[in-house]
Amino acid sequence: MAIAATVPLASRDDLSLAYTPGVARVCEAIAAEPDLVDDYTWVGHTVAVVTDGSAVLGLGNIGARAAMPVMEGKAVLFKQFGGVDAVPICLDTQDVDEIISVVTALAPSFGGINLEDISAPRCFEIERRLDDALPIPVFHDDQHGTAIVVLAALRNAATLLDRKLSDLRVVVSGAGAAGVAVTKMLIAGGVHAEDVVVVDSRGIIHGGRSDLTPVKADLAATTNAAGRSGGIAEALAGADVLVGVSGGQIAEEAVAGMAPDGIVFALANPTPEVHPDVAARHAALVATGRSDFPNQINNVLAFPGIFRGALEARAIRVTDGMKVAAADAIAGVVADALRPDAFVPSALDPRVAPAVAAAVAEAARRGGVARR
Amino acid sequence: MAIAATVPLASRDDLSLAYTPGVARVCEAIAAEPDLVDDYTWVGHTVAVVTDGSAVLGLGNIGARAAMPVMEGKAVLFKQFGGVDAVPICLDTQDVDEIISVVTALAPSFGGINLEDISAPRCFEIERRLDDALPIPVFHDDQHGTAIVVLAALRNAATLLDRKLSDLRVVVSGAGAAGVAVTKMLIAGGVHAEDVVVVDSRGIIHGGRSDLTPVKADLAATTNAAGRSGGIAEALAGADVLVGVSGGQIAEEAVAGMAPDGIVFALANPTPEVHPDVAARHAALVATGRSDFPNQINNVLAFPGIFRGALEARAIRVTDGMKVAAADAIAGVVADALRPDAFVPSALDPRVAPAVAAAVAEAARRGGVARR
Repeated sequence: MAIAATVPLASRDDLSLAYTPGVARVCEAIAAEPDLVDDYTWVGHTVAVVTDGSAVLGLGNIGARAAMPVMEGKAVLFKQFGGVDAVPICLDTQDVDEIISVVTALAPSFGGINLEDISAPRCFEIERRLDDALPIPVFHDDQHGTAIVVLAALRNAATLLDRKLSDLRVVVSGAGAAGVAVTKMLIAGGVHAEDVVVVDSRGIIHGGRSDLTPVKADLAATTNAAGRSGGIAEALAGADVLVGVSGGQIAEEAVAGMAPDGIVFALANPTPEVHPDVAARHAALVATGRSDFPNQINNVLAFPGIFRGALEARAIRVTDGMKVAAADAIAGVVADALRPDAFVPSALDPRVAPAVAAAVAEAARRGGVARR
Repeated sequence: MAIAATVPLASRDDLSLAYTPGVARVCEAIAAEPDLVDDYTWVGHTVAVVTDGSAVLGLGNIGARAAMPVMEGKAVLFKQFGGVDAVPICLDTQDVDEIISVVTALAPSFGGINLEDISAPRCFEIERRLDDALPIPVFHDDQHGTAIVVLAALRNAATLLDRKLSDLRVVVSGAGAAGVAVTKMLIAGGVHAEDVVVVDSRGIIHGGRSDLTPVKADLAATTNAAGRSGGIAEALAGADVLVGVSGGQIAEEAVAGMAPDGIVFALANPTPEVHPDVAARHAALVATGRSDFPNQINNVLAFPGIFRGALEARAIRVTDGMKVAAADAIAGVVADALRPDAFVPSALDPRVAPAVAAAVAEAARRGGVARR
């Protein structure tokens, strides 16, 4: 990746204009009206991709330097798909308070903050406190990017099966960053909270467990109205939908217990929770996180367009309404040509990011969080 | 300014290579050998241009957002002249400890830190503590960039007049960031400390004053061996060189008191301490900070090549030896064709940055601070 100048700097006149003395007038204008920084500098089209290196891909806590290739790759995707200029920032601290104060100090330099590969449950607090503190969008992609694309995929899958989201019984396997966000997003998108069962590494999350983090205790209070307990097999018995988000391998017998015409999204990468060929024996529709199987659920369908739209609207935050609008826009791109092996758009489909951006900007304006 | 991808991301294969799953192998390599981050990501050719907005140009304390146009312009100059990718970082804090902890946390993301437009005397402590803490070059350009170009200009001016630096009596008017650094750099370059007199807004700095900051007290202890006191006129009486660095306007009578065949560098911008036409009545050689007079002393002659050279050598810091080498390289570019109206290279001279980079890298290796 590299920096590119968008103005020429070849002559003495160019230099006087882009740097001293010409730049002083731009500074004075912004000092008088701070919001002009978005129009007069690159801030308005730039996001920071921030990590502490604590949960990088499936590699775990590999630290700031080793996380940089992922952040740089992500920045290139931001540019390629969303036209958003993204700067990778790998922090040499994993202290929650320090991360918050560092990102808060950095914030005037960027139009948005994309948090990335920060371990749960720390990521929930970091995102929430930054979102409260900063006047720009803060978005933890591992949570919401995945969740938005899952909602998009489930919308189209339900359409293919002629089902409504409000009629589906859903199991989410995994209660890390992505699992929690998927659960909330599906509920925001129309699935009934009481019909969702979340399973973590110790089994079904329910109110009777004493080992729950605050975030999981919230899930226990809102989901699983039937009060199921046990493991993944008990959760899946009769369920319509399985969303696997890094909750570990799932045995074929458990999947076999799902209701007929089920939907399986097995998103662990590179090894899906259940192999798609196995899942297809028991479910009508299957998606994975891998590019070499049909229906890849890939965050790149969401984050470039989301930030593009949020920046265009100068949104002060990313609301649930904007996230649902993004999911609907992703789903809409292939809605006219749904097939069991193509109900999720290709990660390379150039129509997706512009559609998402337009929907997100509109939702920001409708939701009263846009500054233009 | 914009981000540019240096690899294609058009196909599914590109995506697998530059992002998941391909990127995981790069992460693992860096986790095993952290220095590889310089080779495998953009870190090795990237610097952060960091400010707190406390002393921006001549505009003063205008804050983080209003400082951004200067930092972005600077980043474009880094790219244009040094091929260095620079990221503008404007911090929403002016607390010294917090600035240090923020920049320390950011450091793994960059190959070097260029501090910019931070007010004195805070800038001295911030630079020193960061330089001690970080394994990468930290360079406050308002101090050293100016100082290096002043030394380069003085080398060529002395050559033109057939004088040695060690024979010159020098007055530095201004004891802010630039004044202090100019004084130290000239001494490092061969001017005798005892022959330098520094003047701040209250007059000549000498050991008898009780109002000195620690940095100025150091100057009082090393410079002004003759124990002069008084104002700028007393300082200039019989002096060979005047370097004006924002020490305020200087009356013609004071300049008239200099020794014959004197040298005046009046660097305040846009209004030089003494107009060059006035200076020329009393001095043999004149330079300013402005592009519309001959002999412009412009930091852009220094910082792109310095960081280019420091990054190429993977220097762990910028030593005085590297700074002197940079000054010599700048001076050397026009050494064969010295004229009274052209003893400083043009800010646009494309030969300067490569010459500076080569000299700085070599000095880093010679000085034992290079990692390659």
